[in-house]
Amino acid sequence: MKIYLAGPEVFLPDAQEIGAAKKAVCAEYGLEGLFPLDGGLDLSGLTQRQAGLAIYDANIALIEAADGCIANVTPFRGPSLDPGTAYEIGHMRGLGKPVFAYSNDVRLFAARTRAFCGVSGARDEEGLLIEDFGLTDNLMIDGAAVCSGSPILCEDKEGVLDDLAAFRACAARAADILLETRT
Amino acid sequence: MKIYLAGPEVFLPDAQEIGAAKKAVCAEYGLEGLFPLDGGLDLSGLTQRQAGLAIYDANIALIEAADGCIANVTPFRGPSLDPGTAYEIGHMRGLGKPVFAYSNDVRLFAARTRAFCGVSGARDEEGLLIEDFGLTDNLMIDGAAVCSGSPILCEDKEGVLDDLAAFRACAARAADILLETRT
Repeated sequence: MKIYLAGPEVFLPDAQEIGAAKKAVCAEYGLEGLFPLDGGLDLSGLTQRQAGLAIYDANIALIEAADGCIANVTPFRGPSLDPGTAYEIGHMRGLGKPVFAYSNDVRLFAARTRAFCGVSGARDEEGLLIEDFGLTDNLMIDGAAVCSGSPILCEDKEGVLDDLAAFRACAARAADILLETRT
Repeated sequence: MKIYLAGPEVFLPDAQEIGAAKKAVCAEYGLEGLFPLDGGLDLSGLTQRQAGLAIYDANIALIEAADGCIANVTPFRGPSLDPGTAYEIGHMRGLGKPVFAYSNDVRLFAARTRAFCGVSGARDEEGLLIEDFGLTDNLMIDGAAVCSGSPILCEDKEGVLDDLAAFRACAARAADILLETRT
């Protein structure tokens, strides 16, 4: 079973190494990890914009080839997950494939949003509602995980992006569900 | 043709009014707008968490009923769009349906991210890459729009969430593409 590895790791200085480490963990659980940088794209001769859109196409091809995904939804530059990861979780669910998600931050979405906005009530200073359903992130993200058979797994790693403890737990859960489905 | 109205308007104090205004614009172009709060959900007796997940289910039902979506990708609490909207754009694309997107902020993603992180170079202070492809948001968002036949439409409205000029342009574009497909 192939599993797409969604997350903001692609922005880390050691993206290739963390991708390799995640694939090794997947292999321990009988899964083949597909990392966004796997496409081996040749971007030479392309404009910036063409290169960005070529990466989109390459990622979509990996998503379509996968049987499911493990998504790192640790907060990224704000109270929520990386928006590319949010997109990929949605695309997977639209394809009817399961999404297993984890976060290295145990705080709930409402608490993180209030901290980000510097408020304590139901709305921010511009009057915008603070979403507060006792969930880990926006309800569309938690809903995607729950519909796939497992809520978002959280570990208290103070939000570091590259800790793999929760990822490992998620890979084990994904293997349980995906490999059981197969048999 | 039914069009799902994705965006952070649901967090505005006058969410129902803005939803009604967007549906009225859609009707002018021969489209039926579906707003996330349309489900008429009865959340009484549910826990917070159950209520959040019920809203997920209701939104997914609207997304599945729609022929496409118009997404407001104006930055929301950080350099990127609302993560629920990012999810919904992905789900739509996974279903093979077109996504028309607009932003009320004309700045490019890299410029917004640098401003948010307070840096001017290729990486933020934690060493994380600043995505820089000359696009409006994360490449997965721009890619979804381009694949649907139209890049993200931007208007300089200083990032206000509820201005409808770019939304109107997007509805016109959506009608051109969706209604032409039908005939």
